[in-house]
Amino acid sequence: MVETWLPTLKTATPQEGFELATKLARLGVKLTQPSDQIRSKLRAAYDQDSGQLIASSQVIAIHFQTVAAANNYWRD
Amino acid sequence: MVETWLPTLKTATPQEGFELATKLARLGVKLTQPSDQIRSKLRAAYDQDSGQLIASSQVIAIHFQTVAAANNYWRD
Amino acid sequence: MVETWLPTLKTATPQEGFELATKLARLGVKLTQPSDQIRSKLRAAYDQDSGQLIASSQVIAIHFQTVAAANNYWRD
Amino acid sequence: MVETWLPTLKTATPQEGFELATKLARLGVKLTQPSDQIRSKLRAAYDQDSGQLIASSQVIAIHFQTVAAANNYWRD
Amino acid sequence: MVETWLPTLKTATPQEGFELATKLARLGVKLTQPSDQIRSKLRAAYDQDSGQLIASSQVIAIHFQTVAAANNYWRD
Amino acid sequence: MVETWLPTLKTATPQEGFELATKLARLGVKLTQPSDQIRSKLRAAYDQDSGQLIASSQVIAIHFQTVAAANNYWRD
Repeated sequence: MVETWLPTLKTATPQEGFELATKLARLGVKLTQPSDQIRSKLRAAYDQDSGQLIASSQVIAIHFQTVAAANNYWRD
Repeated sequence: MVETWLPTLKTATPQEGFELATKLARLGVKLTQPSDQIRSKLRAAYDQDSGQLIASSQVIAIHFQTVAAANNYWRD
Repeated sequence: MVETWLPTLKTATPQEGFELATKLARLGVKLTQPSDQIRSKLRAAYDQDSGQLIASSQVIAIHFQTVAAANNYWRD
Repeated sequence: MVETWLPTLKTATPQEGFELATKLARLGVKLTQPSDQIRSKLRAAYDQDSGQLIASSQVIAIHFQTVAAANNYWRD
Repeated sequence: MVETWLPTLKTATPQEGFELATKLARLGVKLTQPSDQIRSKLRAAYDQDSGQLIASSQVIAIHFQTVAAANNYWRD
Repeated sequence: MVETWLPTLKTATPQEGFELATKLARLGVKLTQPSDQIRSKLRAAYDQDSGQLIASSQVIAIHFQTVAAANNYWRD
């Protein structure tokens, strides 16, 4: 059976949507580098690198656009 | 009880929307590097780095697209 | 006969859409550097480079916007 | 009284919209680094750095998307 | 007579749309650096640079958003 | 009298739209660095730098999204 890691883009609140966007940013890295061990090692480095933190924040921002649109900006 | 840090994308004015976009850009960094201490240390460095300031401005720009759309560009 | 590698943007679920976005990010690299051999060599390097992994994640994020819109955010 | 620096996204012409986008790009930097003195010092450097000028142009481009949409592309 | 190199954004399939997006990414480089000779020389270098290949893939991704929207995501 | 350098986003064809996007990318640089002399000097350098050419192509791509949307993708 295939694992389900992204069942829906719907979230109850903008905050949950932002957390989903953060998850999607990490999934993009994981699909490119599937090794948990290598990702952990890399994370220890980039967590202390402001340029890479800003870049991560940018990927979250792009995904948040998608999630926000999918939820009609939680206007309803 | 879970802390609420993003209750809504609605703001009264474009200016408040821009401030919200700035907050979202910081939240993206915070969710990736939760340590206040490390972020403070990094901030002291990148605040003086024009390339990283421009990159931060870009993340704000992406979030401002989202916030502006959520508010129907404050046209109403 | 021309090979078909992108018949549709429709997917059954957000998860399949995310996988398609990942495929599109790789296709963009492949169309720019068609040599399998060179790409394999480069991959061995960038798989261990957090900056490039984040950049890859960003390309996936951009394609996921397209795929999500094409699927009307799997709302139907 | 709070200063108003972004009362509206409406502009009379595309050109004024482009100027507003430029202003927004600078505001993003200013909200991240509020010191006029430090920003002036940094500007003297990045004004001569083509990579950072292109990056600045990109932030303007992203904001121009927002301003153009807010003005319905000045079609009316 | 002026040469026509972009008559339409319409394509029959997503795949042709992706190829058009790749062409547009190259056109952007060509309009900035019109010399075929210099571009050929540069290409020999960046074809072997994973960071630049990912950046190229990102430009394709942005153009693919445009082409996909122009074709109504090939839904019709 | 103020000079008019962006009277409209409407163009007759996608190709003219792409040329307008290229112009907008340059305008973004010009508004940030107004000195013709410095820009000419920088251009001599970045014209030979593939990374910066790709970055320029990306700014064009973002503006082309805006111009294409303004022209309803030249569908009419």
